[in-house]
Amino acid sequence: MQDFIQPRVLKGFRDFLPQDEILKRTLVENVENVFRKFGFLPIDTPALEYTEILLGKGGGETEKQVYRFTDNGGRDVSLRFDLTVPFARFAAEHRGELTFPFKRYHIAKVWRGENTQRGRYREFTQCDFDCVGSNTAACDFEILLMMKEALAACGAGNVKIKVNHRGMFNNFLKKIGMPEKLTGVLRAVDKLDKIGREEVFRALGEITDSARAEEILNFIGAKSTWEETLDAMIKASGGTSEESERLSVIRKYMIDCNVEDSFVLDPSITRGLDYYTGIVFETFLAEMSEIGSVCSGGRYDNLTGLYSKEPLSGVGASVGLDRLIAAIDALGKTQKRKTYAPVFIACLDEAKTGLYQQLALKLRNSNIACEVSCEAKKLTAQFMLAEKKGASYVIIPNEEDPLNGKITLRDLTSRQNREAYLSSLIDFLKALK
Amino acid sequence: MQDFIQPRVLKGFRDFLPQDEILKRTLVENVENVFRKFGFLPIDTPALEYTEILLGKGGGETEKQVYRFTDNGGRDVSLRFDLTVPFARFAAEHRGELTFPFKRYHIAKVWRGENTQRGRYREFTQCDFDCVGSNTAACDFEILLMMKEALAACGAGNVKIKVNHRGMFNNFLKKIGMPEKLTGVLRAVDKLDKIGREEVFRALGEITDSARAEEILNFIGAKSTWEETLDAMIKASGGTSEESERLSVIRKYMIDCNVEDSFVLDPSITRGLDYYTGIVFETFLAEMSEIGSVCSGGRYDNLTGLYSKEPLSGVGASVGLDRLIAAIDALGKTQKRKTYAPVFIACLDEAKTGLYQQLALKLRNSNIACEVSCEAKKLTAQFMLAEKKGASYVIIPNEEDPLNGKITLRDLTSRQNREAYLSSLIDFLKALK
Repeated sequence: MQDFIQPRVLKGFRDFLPQDEILKRTLVENVENVFRKFGFLPIDTPALEYTEILLGKGGGETEKQVYRFTDNGGRDVSLRFDLTVPFARFAAEHRGELTFPFKRYHIAKVWRGENTQRGRYREFTQCDFDCVGSNTAACDFEILLMMKEALAACGAGNVKIKVNHRGMFNNFLKKIGMPEKLTGVLRAVDKLDKIGREEVFRALGEITDSARAEEILNFIGAKSTWEETLDAMIKASGGTSEESERLSVIRKYMIDCNVEDSFVLDPSITRGLDYYTGIVFETFLAEMSEIGSVCSGGRYDNLTGLYSKEPLSGVGASVGLDRLIAAIDALGKTQKRKTYAPVFIACLDEAKTGLYQQLALKLRNSNIACEVSCEAKKLTAQFMLAEKKGASYVIIPNEEDPLNGKITLRDLTSRQNREAYLSSLIDFLKALK
Repeated sequence: MQDFIQPRVLKGFRDFLPQDEILKRTLVENVENVFRKFGFLPIDTPALEYTEILLGKGGGETEKQVYRFTDNGGRDVSLRFDLTVPFARFAAEHRGELTFPFKRYHIAKVWRGENTQRGRYREFTQCDFDCVGSNTAACDFEILLMMKEALAACGAGNVKIKVNHRGMFNNFLKKIGMPEKLTGVLRAVDKLDKIGREEVFRALGEITDSARAEEILNFIGAKSTWEETLDAMIKASGGTSEESERLSVIRKYMIDCNVEDSFVLDPSITRGLDYYTGIVFETFLAEMSEIGSVCSGGRYDNLTGLYSKEPLSGVGASVGLDRLIAAIDALGKTQKRKTYAPVFIACLDEAKTGLYQQLALKLRNSNIACEVSCEAKKLTAQFMLAEKKGASYVIIPNEEDPLNGKITLRDLTSRQNREAYLSSLIDFLKALK
């Protein structure tokens, strides 16, 4: 007796069956189409890199999660765990070949050996876009606008993009006399939505006295119109500054572009990472804010600091594609398609397959996707197969003359047949789109 | 002084700068569009799998090339080295969830630690398509037709698809009394194009006597019309058979579908691997046959044999995307685009960025991709930047009223300006496509 190998995937990894893969691709294509319309350019980098490149000078949490090994040539290599670090390496390495401001997007898989119990996957798709080489409010705004457009293209419904400026938070901490505690404060503040005001107060209490903890909570709690919130932030941080001016200008752009309703100024958004220096932002679906941010990012001073002495500033964001898909799916906003081909051409006689395929090519040349049946089973069985495959129509070719004779088109929903010549069928099917 | 990490990629790995990535994506999208029009469905599988799944019962050459390591959970894992083995595992695992005949495509990266000296890469994109669950000439023909259409969509020019049937070769070997030497003979015969007749004769001489070696060379050398070649093969292999009948039927389909000129029957095509049992094929570019086959495959009896006791037959092919791109590029058949955005909107005043982006959204809504300049540099500098980025036109917004005033459109090729209102500019730009 033969031993079989149990077919299975690794924990935290997934197969995508056609229906799920079509959904994923539809979203990726919609997002990508927006990026292209904004003039952003695609790049690609290797899945595997030198560990030194990816982890730099030690990566803390990240280091434990990375898929790292020694290759057959004795090199210490790792699978990328995000698209930001490879982009930093890419920008440093190819600086002379790029035209700045350089606007790029990158949609690709990344790998992290995360705890899968929280419903996290170890292989997932990231979708990053950045504009580097220009520290202007115009670039900040463009990234924000592109996020809004990309999410709209995904059918995510209303979104609320929460914006803040890390520099204003720094100014505020300086004003209250604790600029050096930034990382600890950020870590506490970042959890406001998850753990609530009281817990954040307790966490802040471990870093500073209760008067300052209260001040910090007041600062991050100011939520009103953009203008009022900004005024409160300006007062609390010691007056207008370059940073507050940036937030004013971005607001003006939003209003001029008629998109101000999608954005709020929220001083509690900090994005935890030390990396960001300018605006930071997170995006929430109005109908499902509890799943957290589906697109986040910010402005950084120096992307390429690890690899080059020439600093490179930029602003960028990352769409959490898997989370977004899960949310859109849960909201019932997706139409799960089983196939790209609405038309199924039945096979009446296998010997006529060449003619059926010629008929199909005529439809395909008119941009109508169609599958040709490969077996001359009973027509009712073929109707069932077509339905199972997700087709909407079955073409029953003419028995005498498949190419020039009258064709029967069966609507699988209404179960009605209509007879027509090919050219008028093509017109009918094209008009359905 | 700070130490920098030298930015570099691993040997055999590549970055794709925008121009190359756009070219790759254009080809992938063209190929994918053909697959979708034929009703083939996309799937995806993990990059990383259990080594046992990928290597089965020992993989010979493959085993040495695979990126294999122990993950943090102590599992023996490997990066996939092709898309066929993961598909076999996928089909066995999800058999109950698929609708047969199941037609799938999969375009994804694979990794092999190959010798890079032969210009091979260690990370490359494969593009596989298969129809499983129906052993019919109709499926064989569909895969052949789809190959032809996919290559045409890539702009590969004239192709010649060489077809053979492994079963007929087996019949022939049986007839001359050496059925058991199949693998050795296949290995020798497979090299005919590379090493020539004499070397193949010498290699065959190590397996059999010179009379049989001569017979084998005659068998594989028969090259004339499909019909004459088939007749010679039938005679040499002991008369008509199921296998010769399959080749006749496929030929009839080709003629009925008006595509017979793209195909030749070539008994020297064997595809080395024991795996194939039915038709086998390779595809050559008429203008650059020396680069070898750009799309190959065949019919197999049992895809899922390693993982399941239920056999699953099918027919499939794989496009060597990187080789194809290199060839099309070398033939000068590619138009290297630097950007997806033909239009660049100049910035006259950074304070008006919101209005420029609103203008841009109007163009984008009419499917005209456009990049908005983020810095109000001198116009001549912006023209140069737009040109460097690959734009064809620059829009110079109206200084008074960017949205409703007359706009100047500069053609970067002719260096001519034209003035018009937005709606007529949109009409003009749409008509250019």
